[in-house]
Amino acid sequence: MSVTDLIKLEPIGVVKTEAIGKEVRAKKSISRLILHEHLTPALDGLQDFSHMFVVFWMHKISREHRETLRVHPRGRTDLPLLGIFATRTPLRPNPVGITLVEILKVEDNTVTVQGLDAFDGTPILDLKPFDSWDTVRAARIPEWRRRLDKE
Amino acid sequence: MSVTDLIKLEPIGVVKTEAIGKEVRAKKSISRLILHEHLTPALDGLQDFSHMFVVFWMHKISREHRETLRVHPRGRTDLPLLGIFATRTPLRPNPVGITLVEILKVEDNTVTVQGLDAFDGTPILDLKPFDSWDTVRAARIPEWRRRLDKE
Repeated sequence: MSVTDLIKLEPIGVVKTEAIGKEVRAKKSISRLILHEHLTPALDGLQDFSHMFVVFWMHKISREHRETLRVHPRGRTDLPLLGIFATRTPLRPNPVGITLVEILKVEDNTVTVQGLDAFDGTPILDLKPFDSWDTVRAARIPEWRRRLDKE
Repeated sequence: MSVTDLIKLEPIGVVKTEAIGKEVRAKKSISRLILHEHLTPALDGLQDFSHMFVVFWMHKISREHRETLRVHPRGRTDLPLLGIFATRTPLRPNPVGITLVEILKVEDNTVTVQGLDAFDGTPILDLKPFDSWDTVRAARIPEWRRRLDKE
């Protein structure tokens, strides 16, 4: 495959949540992930993990937004102007979101989670259980990012 | 957008590595991520993070493999038969890989990393710096998965 080829993904399901606006970003609300029914067997065993990454498509990001190269994190001009790959801004060439969530319940084709920052109606691309490989004991994180945590 | 719509992604670059076969899975080898040149400004500030997630397209997975619903982890029949969303198998409806890597160097349009389990020529979809939100202090991980770590 040439790197100029387009890659096609098909949503495995959709996010249902009552959270709106800033509640979504707060990562505290409950969401239901409703998968296509034929995928129900693919959830077997997920309930034995406490956490997983939800991979989703940030469908509100326009073609124009996908051409952004630099941003001030969260639009804050008191923070440095950075390349988008040094931030988690949704303005990215491929607006794929990845959020670590707590698994509350797995039932039929529905996974109930806490901590997802995705709007109601967001297409879901993948679910990946949180694994011992997914963490780093002592990661170096820049000052501007640590500042946001303290606020 | 309807959840039945296809989502189109365009690679931001390509993986270059000399690792082959099992060396790739060992997650110890060095890879160079060569981004499209126009994306160079989007890397500004990435060097201040020690780790990031590489999001990539597992381009060797066939359409047929994408229909898999259950697997024995790593093909091992001594481990339980599980839904693919309870594992990190590459056989998934959307074969998007996510691997946490160490950033060794950022220079022009190239990021040198250690720990990526992607073959030479793999299309890269996104780079996301490792963030305080990406980890869990006490995740519950099933027995079959902990067993693999001990081996």
